[in-house]
Amino acid sequence: MPETTMKCFVMRGIGKVAVMEKPIPRPGPFDAIIRTTAALICTSDTHTVAGAIGDRHDLTLGHEAVGVIHELGAAVAESGRFKVGQRVAVNAITPCYACDNCQRGYSSQCGGMLGGWKFANVKDGSMAEYFHVNNALANLAPIPAALTDEQAAYCCDMLSTGFIGAEFANIPIGGSVAIFAQGPVGLMATVGARLRGAGLVIGVESMPNRIALAKKYGCDVVVDYSKEDPVEAIKRLTGGHGVDSAIEALGSPKTFAACVSATRPGGTISNIGYHGDGDSVPIPRLDWGVGMSDKTIRTALCPGGSERMGRLLRLIESGRVDPLAMTTHRFAFKDIERAFHMMQTKEDGMIKPLITFG
Amino acid sequence: MPETTMKCFVMRGIGKVAVMEKPIPRPGPFDAIIRTTAALICTSDTHTVAGAIGDRHDLTLGHEAVGVIHELGAAVAESGRFKVGQRVAVNAITPCYACDNCQRGYSSQCGGMLGGWKFANVKDGSMAEYFHVNNALANLAPIPAALTDEQAAYCCDMLSTGFIGAEFANIPIGGSVAIFAQGPVGLMATVGARLRGAGLVIGVESMPNRIALAKKYGCDVVVDYSKEDPVEAIKRLTGGHGVDSAIEALGSPKTFAACVSATRPGGTISNIGYHGDGDSVPIPRLDWGVGMSDKTIRTALCPGGSERMGRLLRLIESGRVDPLAMTTHRFAFKDIERAFHMMQTKEDGMIKPLITFG
Amino acid sequence: MPETTMKCFVMRGIGKVAVMEKPIPRPGPFDAIIRTTAALICTSDTHTVAGAIGDRHDLTLGHEAVGVIHELGAAVAESGRFKVGQRVAVNAITPCYACDNCQRGYSSQCGGMLGGWKFANVKDGSMAEYFHVNNALANLAPIPAALTDEQAAYCCDMLSTGFIGAEFANIPIGGSVAIFAQGPVGLMATVGARLRGAGLVIGVESMPNRIALAKKYGCDVVVDYSKEDPVEAIKRLTGGHGVDSAIEALGSPKTFAACVSATRPGGTISNIGYHGDGDSVPIPRLDWGVGMSDKTIRTALCPGGSERMGRLLRLIESGRVDPLAMTTHRFAFKDIERAFHMMQTKEDGMIKPLITFG
Amino acid sequence: MPETTMKCFVMRGIGKVAVMEKPIPRPGPFDAIIRTTAALICTSDTHTVAGAIGDRHDLTLGHEAVGVIHELGAAVAESGRFKVGQRVAVNAITPCYACDNCQRGYSSQCGGMLGGWKFANVKDGSMAEYFHVNNALANLAPIPAALTDEQAAYCCDMLSTGFIGAEFANIPIGGSVAIFAQGPVGLMATVGARLRGAGLVIGVESMPNRIALAKKYGCDVVVDYSKEDPVEAIKRLTGGHGVDSAIEALGSPKTFAACVSATRPGGTISNIGYHGDGDSVPIPRLDWGVGMSDKTIRTALCPGGSERMGRLLRLIESGRVDPLAMTTHRFAFKDIERAFHMMQTKEDGMIKPLITFG
Repeated sequence: MPETTMKCFVMRGIGKVAVMEKPIPRPGPFDAIIRTTAALICTSDTHTVAGAIGDRHDLTLGHEAVGVIHELGAAVAESGRFKVGQRVAVNAITPCYACDNCQRGYSSQCGGMLGGWKFANVKDGSMAEYFHVNNALANLAPIPAALTDEQAAYCCDMLSTGFIGAEFANIPIGGSVAIFAQGPVGLMATVGARLRGAGLVIGVESMPNRIALAKKYGCDVVVDYSKEDPVEAIKRLTGGHGVDSAIEALGSPKTFAACVSATRPGGTISNIGYHGDGDSVPIPRLDWGVGMSDKTIRTALCPGGSERMGRLLRLIESGRVDPLAMTTHRFAFKDIERAFHMMQTKEDGMIKPLITFG
Repeated sequence: MPETTMKCFVMRGIGKVAVMEKPIPRPGPFDAIIRTTAALICTSDTHTVAGAIGDRHDLTLGHEAVGVIHELGAAVAESGRFKVGQRVAVNAITPCYACDNCQRGYSSQCGGMLGGWKFANVKDGSMAEYFHVNNALANLAPIPAALTDEQAAYCCDMLSTGFIGAEFANIPIGGSVAIFAQGPVGLMATVGARLRGAGLVIGVESMPNRIALAKKYGCDVVVDYSKEDPVEAIKRLTGGHGVDSAIEALGSPKTFAACVSATRPGGTISNIGYHGDGDSVPIPRLDWGVGMSDKTIRTALCPGGSERMGRLLRLIESGRVDPLAMTTHRFAFKDIERAFHMMQTKEDGMIKPLITFG
Repeated sequence: MPETTMKCFVMRGIGKVAVMEKPIPRPGPFDAIIRTTAALICTSDTHTVAGAIGDRHDLTLGHEAVGVIHELGAAVAESGRFKVGQRVAVNAITPCYACDNCQRGYSSQCGGMLGGWKFANVKDGSMAEYFHVNNALANLAPIPAALTDEQAAYCCDMLSTGFIGAEFANIPIGGSVAIFAQGPVGLMATVGARLRGAGLVIGVESMPNRIALAKKYGCDVVVDYSKEDPVEAIKRLTGGHGVDSAIEALGSPKTFAACVSATRPGGTISNIGYHGDGDSVPIPRLDWGVGMSDKTIRTALCPGGSERMGRLLRLIESGRVDPLAMTTHRFAFKDIERAFHMMQTKEDGMIKPLITFG
Repeated sequence: MPETTMKCFVMRGIGKVAVMEKPIPRPGPFDAIIRTTAALICTSDTHTVAGAIGDRHDLTLGHEAVGVIHELGAAVAESGRFKVGQRVAVNAITPCYACDNCQRGYSSQCGGMLGGWKFANVKDGSMAEYFHVNNALANLAPIPAALTDEQAAYCCDMLSTGFIGAEFANIPIGGSVAIFAQGPVGLMATVGARLRGAGLVIGVESMPNRIALAKKYGCDVVVDYSKEDPVEAIKRLTGGHGVDSAIEALGSPKTFAACVSATRPGGTISNIGYHGDGDSVPIPRLDWGVGMSDKTIRTALCPGGSERMGRLLRLIESGRVDPLAMTTHRFAFKDIERAFHMMQTKEDGMIKPLITFG
């Protein structure tokens, strides 16, 4: 007799997590159920548990996971495009691809602001033995045979978010870029900046292990903001002009303001940091040219969809990026609580912990 | 014997203006001297006199003027493209078109932030009987025979700034736009929004004469912000979604924040207002989708250059826009001081005062 | 007892049409069935019958139709977004919005080249008493109460195709545009060019009734190519430079080549004509600057989807365009064969014939 | 007493070259004179001598050269931005940056189609002991101290042209690209495709030494078109879809057509090949989707200007590209004729011959 229940890692309420049993989900006609094989914990999971998006009760956490297809909805099965047992990756963002915002090309805003973000927000997340995927025809991405599950898991959020930071930064070929914060998203923004042809990539970071990774992943220079003012350093490194593009990969008002100040007129500030506090985020008026500097501020939420996932997986397959240097720790799913608590404090220099299943 | 001096309307110091005599300027090899025939006062002239860009002594004011060519520099004359006596318009912004920022396509930032703005900022302005034009080959725009000098004068700043507000707003065909403030720049942004194909144009304004002009120039609806919250009104008028694009044509932190809030995810906020006060301009954090809403914030400073001026003049010539409804008052240059003081207070419902010469 | 069969206007085979009975279609879970109220015949229907896309047997023709919702698939009904009896318009192109090409933003190429074009190509068309709509959540566009069915029917193809011709033409504000052929698609490209802010719109046409309509819909000048070479005329009208943008709305190699020649360096040729003959379409080598002129050639197939349809319907509702001047003839559905044969020859100056139902 | 004459390598007439003496040129106020230190011969020089752009008499050839500033025009000297003796690179294209086309952003079309191309076309080229630079403030690019003259010389045309091929190809991150022909421009397009983040780079070439260089410079696969049909091979390598982007780096009608056929719907064909023969270049009608495939065809001529040159030089300086592997042969200027004749036949596997001076 097949199993009907599964273990899930849930948020019990603000500040509280636990492992609990839930029924294995069943698919609607356009859905799929994935048996999880590998997952990553995201810092945003810790924000969620801290209450950043309000309270949740027994909501399964997690949005960076890959696995094998366990069950397909009728319409998905009929399409013949996927089969049970196939290895797939699913982006953190799972749009419907039918609503107005999806048709406009803003699928992360599916159905409304940030509405493409469903896992661990408006439905159970993927840090469980099985997880449910809506609109599976558009959201299941086959994993190439040459890639490990661990590699593929990095495409769900880290590569997609980091790279869009660079894509939206409008980097001219040979241009200069500053990336504020070199956590895993900032590191992948660094890779993204190199992939878009930046000629000078400046990281801003203070933690020694992250500085080392920043250099490994492509920063030409890393400015340690604990030792010098990053805006002044960036001006110095760019002949006084500022960078063509700045990427905010932290989510802090002060860092955001520094991005605006460090960017030259006509340049672009690309925000991918999640701003969790305060009523407003300030634009420094004078460095913004009193609103007439031709500076552009863009924002993005991890773009999903199988088509993009296919391109991200290909970049790993063809050797353009190797995300595995970010895996600082490894745990079996049974130790998920310990892993999560370490992620809350970034204990032991944790960058990304890999969780393996079964 | 030819005249060698001319009358100019100058800023004597913060808060003080006067008419004074100066020598008629002479051109360098790539310059031109224009004998002024018609000019407009800009609200930004009153800001300058109030000290917005710091103190200035005996600097000639004005940046919206047209006239006839009085003298050409040697290289300009040699080019054979212009001749003395020809009617020309000169944009408020006069880039060099050779520096890095000009080559990058950001000519308003010529040589540095806002550096294309030379008139009444780093050199004498055009509110004088004669004025000097740098880089004349790129900055002199012949006025078509069918246009009056008054019509052409509106291209120097009002059309160029208002229209770029709409061009940078990334309006989808049939999309919705809100334009905050319906002063002369906002009115021309309204025309610009119609010219880019907006299907719903919402003005935000409270002064009755400006509301009337807003409707004349193409607003489908005008929201009176003194009577209802403009963000709520815009949401109501757009089925709860917000507009595709919002244009800030005032330069106020509160209005800017309202633009961000009134724009739907994936939409664009186009700032053309001059922000004169405060350390920072706030982005409302939640309505910005915590920095992940796919909203874009752009900024611009009145694009100059003869090529753009040619297109603006053509739009008047082909009947797409008639700026003359904005001329609420007319003065001879000898009465410039009175005109200026009325502009400081917007006395008598002044929108734009035309100044005629000779 | 409800009706179970309906009358359809079909292609029996190459060169042959007829009215026949078919069962009223039933929806799958994501589909809808529409009871037709108004439809337009498209010249492309006559091409299809002539064999342009190969033979077809008893395939229902038509792709420009509106009506009321007759039946909804289970998933569409559950969404609560639509209800039986509601008036809706459906674009000629009905993408799935899930496949790779849809996710990339090229929904007209759904599933493969031109694959969004399903009506009267790979499934029955809409020239019938009822028609079937796939992916209804993304393809049903409610008709505003203020619009007639006839007005709405023009959004299905004529406005969408004509306007994308202008949208893809990259017209600078105040720029110059030439539109080759002023049939109904070319006329709507003319309106589109005005909606994007063109300062000079040049039509190319020879039939007097179309020349008259071209002027009514916004051409500043119409060049009669039977009387003068259109490229020379366009050069003359643009000071020798050529236009910023040329739109090919016919589908002829000669016209396409003229578009390339009439466009200035850096300009855009936007092709919306269906090229039905020959192995290749020639780019004139020298006028293309031996492949180094910075000229861009774009192409498009009528973009579909409810979101775009909403914007097109709004443009009629807000008075930006009135398509009804294109309806030169009106027929009841029982007279469809006569209407179709007149469309084949454009007898009696036919532009668009409206077909009404029930 | 200073030298007043110099040696130049000239085209005497169609099919004839020679070294002759000419006076060392003198600068106008906005010009500069460069003493040449290193130059490269371009295949297009051999086309010019063969008559591709018509006859020329005693016109100095060459457009890829670097050197030291010998004399500055008065206005350039006054600017204080450059000084005699400084090492500079000058792009093959030297726009005025003042005319309409320059202001529009199409500086390669300066003053008219292909008008930015002045060296060895409308004025003496740079294959001489000294050469003249117009609009020097916009066209002189200082060479960083870390770069050799040979490295810098590759920025004048090879990097600028090859990279713009990739920049205009609109490559999505992780997307697929095919580059037809792996001569020096195609090789740099390969580097450009990698710099823009392509996930799969396919070269098309048949000469073994070029295939080897193609792999060195970043092709993941090279298709030998002498052994298999390149369109079929590309389809096979891309799951039947075709590439996102194809770059034509040869200038042949057959290759151009293959680019259109090998590109998926919605993709971009970027032409940087110089098409020297025939009345027209054919677009294959069916593979172009009868003009409705959403495929875009772009074209470019080596973009010039000091700002872009600065970014290209930086890419060499920061180690992103090492052009020196393309230098297959080296000659002193006294042996220029032999070098030129070898370039005509590509004798001895010549890719690029470096010419050194004095």
